Amino acid sequence: MSDDYRQMWKDLGLDLDAHDALLGVLGQGYQQVFLSQQDRPEGMAYFDFVMSEVHGLRIKELLDEKAAGRKIVGSYCVFVPEEIVLAANATLVGLCSGADFATEDVEKLLQRNTCALIKSSFGFKIGKVCPYLESADMIVGENTCDGKKKAYETLGTLVDNLYVMDLPQVKSENGNALLKAEYRRFKAAVEILTGVAVTTESLKLAIRTVNAKRAAIHRLSLLRKADPAPISGLDALLANQVFFYDNPARFTDSVNKICDELEKPIAAKQGVFPEKTPRILVSGCPQAVPNWKLPMIVETAGAVIVGEESCVGERGTRNLTDASGQTVDEMLDAIVDRYFKVDCAIFTPNPDRLAHIQQMVTDYNADGVIHYGLQFCQPYLMESIPVEKVLEEKNIPCLRIETDYSMEDVGQLTTRVEAFVEQLR
Amino acid sequence: MSDDYRQMWKDLGLDLDAHDALLGVLGQGYQQVFLSQQDRPEGMAYFDFVMSEVHGLRIKELLDEKAAGRKIVGSYCVFVPEEIVLAANATLVGLCSGADFATEDVEKLLQRNTCALIKSSFGFKIGKVCPYLESADMIVGENTCDGKKKAYETLGTLVDNLYVMDLPQVKSENGNALLKAEYRRFKAAVEILTGVAVTTESLKLAIRTVNAKRAAIHRLSLLRKADPAPISGLDALLANQVFFYDNPARFTDSVNKICDELEKPIAAKQGVFPEKTPRILVSGCPQAVPNWKLPMIVETAGAVIVGEESCVGERGTRNLTDASGQTVDEMLDAIVDRYFKVDCAIFTPNPDRLAHIQQMVTDYNADGVIHYGLQFCQPYLMESIPVEKVLEEKNIPCLRIETDYSMEDVGQLTTRVEAFVEQLR
Repeated sequence: MSDDYRQMWKDLGLDLDAHDALLGVLGQGYQQVFLSQQDRPEGMAYFDFVMSEVHGLRIKELLDEKAAGRKIVGSYCVFVPEEIVLAANATLVGLCSGADFATEDVEKLLQRNTCALIKSSFGFKIGKVCPYLESADMIVGENTCDGKKKAYETLGTLVDNLYVMDLPQVKSENGNALLKAEYRRFKAAVEILTGVAVTTESLKLAIRTVNAKRAAIHRLSLLRKADPAPISGLDALLANQVFFYDNPARFTDSVNKICDELEKPIAAKQGVFPEKTPRILVSGCPQAVPNWKLPMIVETAGAVIVGEESCVGERGTRNLTDASGQTVDEMLDAIVDRYFKVDCAIFTPNPDRLAHIQQMVTDYNADGVIHYGLQFCQPYLMESIPVEKVLEEKNIPCLRIETDYSMEDVGQLTTRVEAFVEQLR
Repeated sequence: MSDDYRQMWKDLGLDLDAHDALLGVLGQGYQQVFLSQQDRPEGMAYFDFVMSEVHGLRIKELLDEKAAGRKIVGSYCVFVPEEIVLAANATLVGLCSGADFATEDVEKLLQRNTCALIKSSFGFKIGKVCPYLESADMIVGENTCDGKKKAYETLGTLVDNLYVMDLPQVKSENGNALLKAEYRRFKAAVEILTGVAVTTESLKLAIRTVNAKRAAIHRLSLLRKADPAPISGLDALLANQVFFYDNPARFTDSVNKICDELEKPIAAKQGVFPEKTPRILVSGCPQAVPNWKLPMIVETAGAVIVGEESCVGERGTRNLTDASGQTVDEMLDAIVDRYFKVDCAIFTPNPDRLAHIQQMVTDYNADGVIHYGLQFCQPYLMESIPVEKVLEEKNIPCLRIETDYSMEDVGQLTTRVEAFVEQLR
């Protein structure tokens, strides 16, 4: 990244030395994991550029938006409705949480047995290495799991712009009513932040913008049905990760360009892995940048990932929002209906997720499922056992992985994944 | 226990050999932990009897009630309103969850990193050693922590009479509305179970019955303000544990008798520990029968426990329900108001608990606080760090313990507790 950004990072209050170290590791990791792949779609060059500028150009864009009077809202979860943020003239960005940082200091604030994702979000704050967090005018927490909801109480002592959204635990009438009330409360809070009232026109446009982004990434997903796979799981995951950071319209165009490009090799039965390569569906916890450990291991072991049943994947993106409402209220209800369908493991019971995993196995012609669980993520780890059970009953091989962001278990994971892939051949 | 009970246990479907082994360990533990204490109140003989008959006479009583047409409702949590259960002509009992059992089989259903309390509840079911569970006509789960709410999904595959109650995570208007709706739904479910409609009279009587039980245990708590302490923390904890099992009226009488008895030695400045013995408040996770590990260590280390800020303790019992309502609806609202005050760590934020801990330190003249956290109990472990922080700011020594039900860490815990007690002298 350019030296021009150093002053920008300094102005944001980043710890430049620590940030340099982070970018060094990130760049090296990206080189090893992504750029070493063969026969990548040309359109991935855009994402390579985005990643090379993830703390540079994109941050500069956000700061330019701020200078022009727009507000930035940071989020840790797919339950934060981007439609509302956009409609009130703000930009939504995902916040950094895919790598260990400042762990020793984090564990003074969070108990040791907290999942890596939550620890990471604290590490990036305490270590002063997340320019997104430092650029944000509002940081949105949400009461999903126990770990996050209790962690936000402490995060609120580290930042002065935390907004916490309550969420239901049950998909009941009361649960729906809670989400309705909370999304309206959130709309009011964003309107106060920006000074811009959400209108019928702005909300309709925002819904269409976000729907277009989702439709594009869904189009990419559908292309992965092809055998041989036209794109690696790593590259597809990257697109799903950039979904949370990029300018929505530009992201939509870039993904659609890749899709256009892929149609030709798919028709010609060409792919990035040989035909009959074992096809894997990854299901479970979100994999945030730069958490590429599992897909790297899987695709190095001679399998290809054909889908992500994950927040960073179809769980987060698959459903569109009905844009046909004639009033703000009608569209807000449509937004609630859309997000209420998200089948996160925080819901009890959560049968939709079991059904969706099986549907994805069928749709993407997967040979097996790897359940990706972050250590100490109780909702997904607990749900992994019934997931495995239901898949076994359908004779779909399933491997349950429990890991964190460290590299210590790479050898052990590789052995387990290789054995699993062998079983699928 | 009498041989007469063997047929009863067999009829309940218990595994007699495993149950014998459990009772053997329980009896031995009780002997070592409780009966070895000096100068116990005479009134504790009642609780010794209750414990000696905990799987015997009390179960026979419940079965006699069932034979007479009454229903038994089993619960794992202080959020299940006993008032409603009693008013619909049923009996509420706490379900076994204080010891490891059948752990290997449990871990096939629950992920390894689940807290001991949840694992224990499954172990007692799978191992067929809990006569309360097997006697219950309805088992009530509740969406408190992630661990429990997801575990109930699996428990529902092991029993055919599970009822799950949703709970709020935030003490907001919406949270209150959810609890109101859920307690009304629960009332309807219990009425269907018993065939008995809750009436103004039955609900008023039930509120008074439960209030009397709470008032009695609160009276015992207040007596523990005395120095020297008139009753050991172990004995007081036992009374708090039996609170969940015993016939309410008999329990109330028995606790009041102990209180009557204690007034004389208190006036005479006599106690079960020497004056100036370091006084400890235990705060945190519930300690269910027979989980007596920590208080045994503390009171063997030369300190006395003067209060429990716990579900099995003041968090569960301190607030009474307003019985002045003139209609079922008014009284149901009063019940909601009462339970909504429970300051469980599942709520976010949860400032009432921080205030209550400090209030208890003052009220009971405690020299220090031991925060008791069950390993993998995210809500209490996460809250333990701000608890420690706020106590340190007030110069109140605090020791954070993280443990489970095994005896493996007794040596290590003893060392830490002894050092902490030494610091308080």
